[in-house]
Amino acid sequence: MIIQPGELLASIHTPADLRKLKPTQLLQVSQELRQYIIDVVSIHGGHFGASLGVVELTTALHYVFNTPYDQLVWDVGHQAYGHKILTGRRENFHTNRKYKGLSGFPKRKESEYDTFGVGHSSTSISAALGMAVASKYKHEEDRQHIAVIGDGAMTGGMAFEAMNHAGVANANLLVVLNDNCMSIDPNVGALKEYLTDITTSRTYNKVRDEIWNILGKISKFGPNAQHIASKIESGIKATVLKQSNLFEGLNFRYFGPIDGHDINHLASVLEDLKHIPGPKILHCLTTKGKGFELAEKDQTKWHAPGLFDKITGEIYKTTYDTPQPPKYQDVFGHTMVELAEQNPKIMGVTPAMPSGCSLNIMMAAMPDRAFDVGIAEQHAVTFSAGLATQGMIPFCNIYSTFMQRGYDQVVHDVCLQNLNVVFCLDRAGFAGADGPTHHGAYDIAYMRCIPNMIVAAPMNEQELRNMMYSASQDNVGPFTIRYPRGEGVMPHWRTPLELQPIGKGRTIQEGEEVAILTFGHIGNYAVDVCKKLAYDGINPGHYDMRYCKPLDAELLHHIFTKYDKVITVEDGCLQGGFGSAVLEFMVDNGYTSQVKRLGMADVIYEHGSQMELHREAGFAPEDIERTVRELIGVTVKV
Amino acid sequence: MIIQPGELLASIHTPADLRKLKPTQLLQVSQELRQYIIDVVSIHGGHFGASLGVVELTTALHYVFNTPYDQLVWDVGHQAYGHKILTGRRENFHTNRKYKGLSGFPKRKESEYDTFGVGHSSTSISAALGMAVASKYKHEEDRQHIAVIGDGAMTGGMAFEAMNHAGVANANLLVVLNDNCMSIDPNVGALKEYLTDITTSRTYNKVRDEIWNILGKISKFGPNAQHIASKIESGIKATVLKQSNLFEGLNFRYFGPIDGHDINHLASVLEDLKHIPGPKILHCLTTKGKGFELAEKDQTKWHAPGLFDKITGEIYKTTYDTPQPPKYQDVFGHTMVELAEQNPKIMGVTPAMPSGCSLNIMMAAMPDRAFDVGIAEQHAVTFSAGLATQGMIPFCNIYSTFMQRGYDQVVHDVCLQNLNVVFCLDRAGFAGADGPTHHGAYDIAYMRCIPNMIVAAPMNEQELRNMMYSASQDNVGPFTIRYPRGEGVMPHWRTPLELQPIGKGRTIQEGEEVAILTFGHIGNYAVDVCKKLAYDGINPGHYDMRYCKPLDAELLHHIFTKYDKVITVEDGCLQGGFGSAVLEFMVDNGYTSQVKRLGMADVIYEHGSQMELHREAGFAPEDIERTVRELIGVTVKV
Repeated sequence: MIIQPGELLASIHTPADLRKLKPTQLLQVSQELRQYIIDVVSIHGGHFGASLGVVELTTALHYVFNTPYDQLVWDVGHQAYGHKILTGRRENFHTNRKYKGLSGFPKRKESEYDTFGVGHSSTSISAALGMAVASKYKHEEDRQHIAVIGDGAMTGGMAFEAMNHAGVANANLLVVLNDNCMSIDPNVGALKEYLTDITTSRTYNKVRDEIWNILGKISKFGPNAQHIASKIESGIKATVLKQSNLFEGLNFRYFGPIDGHDINHLASVLEDLKHIPGPKILHCLTTKGKGFELAEKDQTKWHAPGLFDKITGEIYKTTYDTPQPPKYQDVFGHTMVELAEQNPKIMGVTPAMPSGCSLNIMMAAMPDRAFDVGIAEQHAVTFSAGLATQGMIPFCNIYSTFMQRGYDQVVHDVCLQNLNVVFCLDRAGFAGADGPTHHGAYDIAYMRCIPNMIVAAPMNEQELRNMMYSASQDNVGPFTIRYPRGEGVMPHWRTPLELQPIGKGRTIQEGEEVAILTFGHIGNYAVDVCKKLAYDGINPGHYDMRYCKPLDAELLHHIFTKYDKVITVEDGCLQGGFGSAVLEFMVDNGYTSQVKRLGMADVIYEHGSQMELHREAGFAPEDIERTVRELIGVTVKV
Repeated sequence: MIIQPGELLASIHTPADLRKLKPTQLLQVSQELRQYIIDVVSIHGGHFGASLGVVELTTALHYVFNTPYDQLVWDVGHQAYGHKILTGRRENFHTNRKYKGLSGFPKRKESEYDTFGVGHSSTSISAALGMAVASKYKHEEDRQHIAVIGDGAMTGGMAFEAMNHAGVANANLLVVLNDNCMSIDPNVGALKEYLTDITTSRTYNKVRDEIWNILGKISKFGPNAQHIASKIESGIKATVLKQSNLFEGLNFRYFGPIDGHDINHLASVLEDLKHIPGPKILHCLTTKGKGFELAEKDQTKWHAPGLFDKITGEIYKTTYDTPQPPKYQDVFGHTMVELAEQNPKIMGVTPAMPSGCSLNIMMAAMPDRAFDVGIAEQHAVTFSAGLATQGMIPFCNIYSTFMQRGYDQVVHDVCLQNLNVVFCLDRAGFAGADGPTHHGAYDIAYMRCIPNMIVAAPMNEQELRNMMYSASQDNVGPFTIRYPRGEGVMPHWRTPLELQPIGKGRTIQEGEEVAILTFGHIGNYAVDVCKKLAYDGINPGHYDMRYCKPLDAELLHHIFTKYDKVITVEDGCLQGGFGSAVLEFMVDNGYTSQVKRLGMADVIYEHGSQMELHREAGFAPEDIERTVRELIGVTVKV
């Protein structure tokens, strides 16, 4: 279905067209843009609330600034739908997040207006500062550099690092703080409270104005009073003006807070800011989901609601007659509560993903034992390490791709000290529609190289539960459990918790000639393949290895003794991954089987459904099947 | 030589002994402690200035707090010598940083007073908060948790993440900000300027006091003035008191700045702070190198000066009659300037290590093109990525172990976008005396799994220069060059710059039966081994692979066709490392040679000299030699 844009929006093919309009037409453009986003997302899906919240800001930025010469960096980028629509991608926007379609995030390859690829949080100030410093070096004094960052992303440490540098770099940088008090979940932390403070009743600016006002009045009391007023003034200059604001403390000029939905005022303020050199921050207040009442009211639900009826607001859900397998996320969430009820040492930690990871179940049930620490992966890991030093057993629940941001802390604070921290890596493997910034591709490689770290992956819900249970025993040490986004395979998943031996795999079927070694959920493909091959009389062995580290040496000796041909399958990178660990074992032990490793090649995979991506990478069921047939059909090349 | 402690210090075996002293004796203890540090470090080496700067703070903390029940976390930890001496390790202190001796950093295995192992910066607040939250959960209301963090470490993003969480966690946490305006190099960034602002002439406190004072006077002008004064007061309360301080903005109670060398005042303030619940920060001003005049004057030089004459201050240097090979660090530094003189696109970026990495050479020569961004690895990487989007070619120079902290940014901001950023990973492999927190053990594994990344290691100075030159060409993409701490092998190292083909190795010698494949500087061991073996008529092949990724396929086909026995040698972890990459190639291409991989095993290696550690890990020259002999002597196990 083709969505018709409103009249003005239809005339805008690039921001240059937008800039031809009169200021009085901006309101209408922004209304049409909002409607267009609602129309498309309701039938094609995608992120919703964030883009609605910045419709006016997006329009004003492209109206005032000379994009793409002026450089606009969106933090995270799931709020950039309006930006995409205004910058030449309206007609393709229905392909958003679909295989081979537009990316759900800004992406340099996609458009010159996308100055920096994003997806993870808190990178925009660093990137824009790099651009600004390069412009300064190239004497492009007129060039503007704008980072648009949410208040949630502002809690990420690297945003602070960038502010600290920008404050002394003397480059032309505008940070637009898009303050909607939300990341995906409601924002947490002292910064949020601080922002609320300066935006409620007595704002910083109001107080400042009031003090100036009063100082004027004091002067009327005569020379003595004038003297006093001048002393106060200098005192206030030194404190209130210079230091009274956290951002001004970092040498940014602070402006705001202003209403981020008043488009004409926004445009006029941005116009003024163009002429102010150096680092500056504009604090905009916006409402996530603005203009779609239900989305304003339940911002977490409407962050990325799926398809919905744009009139009634009904979110479409598939219903089934029979019980369906749950999401791994929910199995994690409910199992956390079960484990914590039995074991008072267990705690839960998430960096700003309680609903995505389902730690919110434990946060509701045991608020003193489950913590959302904000967008702060580094802190989440070391905070967990601190808990572990006191005999607690923290489960630190992080998306695989975001774990990269706490990597040093995993090495330095957890593994070097051999502390009992359990890392539950959610969305491991291909993430799907979120694309390359969100694929959990490298975790097996970057985790298994760290001493003391255990690396496990469940093939189903029961294994996830048992791994969590086994990991939560005393003195187990650092433990990683990786599992994919989405559903498992067991409708009746609430199985009794059983301790599993760590580092032991499981034989699914003994076979002949070829052994298939799988790691994690992807093993279910191999089960299907084996069933199918059996009809042709082909019976490969299938082993669910469960642990990539430590490997099950006994099982591997059996496999390499029995089979000359081995296939490894993993939903992760082939360089240094699970298959590579198997090769290390094989060669270290003097075996010379032929091994074919299936997994992600050394390329960047774009977005698509998980199955589309498994096919592209060559480890979908048909690929496993073909590999078995090929290995059986050919002789070993020596 | 046994160093005799002063009289009072000699009586202190644990902090409990210290706490038996009268407050009037604290000054003497601190003086004796300072002298003891000077005495030991001058003849045994180690970090110097940092520990001298916190002698009074260390003494006061252990005097006032009930350690180890009260939990003290030192950030970075190279300033914790006084702490070690006061907590039962005085008599072993001469083994500091020596193989099998005391660690140069706090370490949980070493003492119950070392609550958290450190080495990397900015972890202390997260760790102490974890401890404090655990105490709260366990109803240990009387337990104190103290993080001591330098102003340099405070710029690291995770410190901010931790403050943001601590500000709302309602746990009993004291952050002592040890402000000496230095990390190893002088501190940079807006935070430093901010701290200077609030500590110079008109301090925050002075201004606040002054305003209160003036308000009192205004009231004398009668009812009208009283009304005005009260309005100003409420305005000031709302701004100056509540928000005027960056830390109070994050919901910490701020105290200070106070003189960190006035031990009695320090102790009395700390005593008061014990009784104030919630998050609080004490801002202490100290002088790095305090009490040793030369160290106070040149703080970078005296950060870790080596051995010296404690009377004259002469730093001992070995002199040679012939030219010696330079440090890889200096080759990097000088070559940066050479390259940048030829190529205006080249820029240099370091996160707070200009002297350690020798980027200071370029910073002096070209201040507009070389940047110290503070302790901020994440920002350093993405800032570099931002520069690269504008056609610059930034060299981002980071210690291998600290690169872990910018890992996500390498994946997400550099490699996904295939940007021309060159990572020069200094101190790759065993770091030596700094120990496990500083070994650059995992970089090969965690870098080679990222698509688009090139991973190289030079065997000598000339290769480093040529790799840097090759990496700085247009459109090369992300490029990692890893090299060790310390000297290379070429006294005459300033060779003409030559473009090298990327991904091509070098044959050092063709041989028979066994091939030795080396990656990086460690290849020089193999050269020596081959020379020695030649006397016995044993002639292994030796190949300096130069690139771990992309591997030189042509050369590897030659090697695996020619040799049945292959040894790989790397100064890095075996799990997923260089040798593992070679195995992947071998098995993917159907070869079945016997391969023995030498490198770091899957264990934590402690500190020691690089050679001691190479021996422990089994890739010292004698290990390579033995492996060749063993392979030749034994038959292949199949």
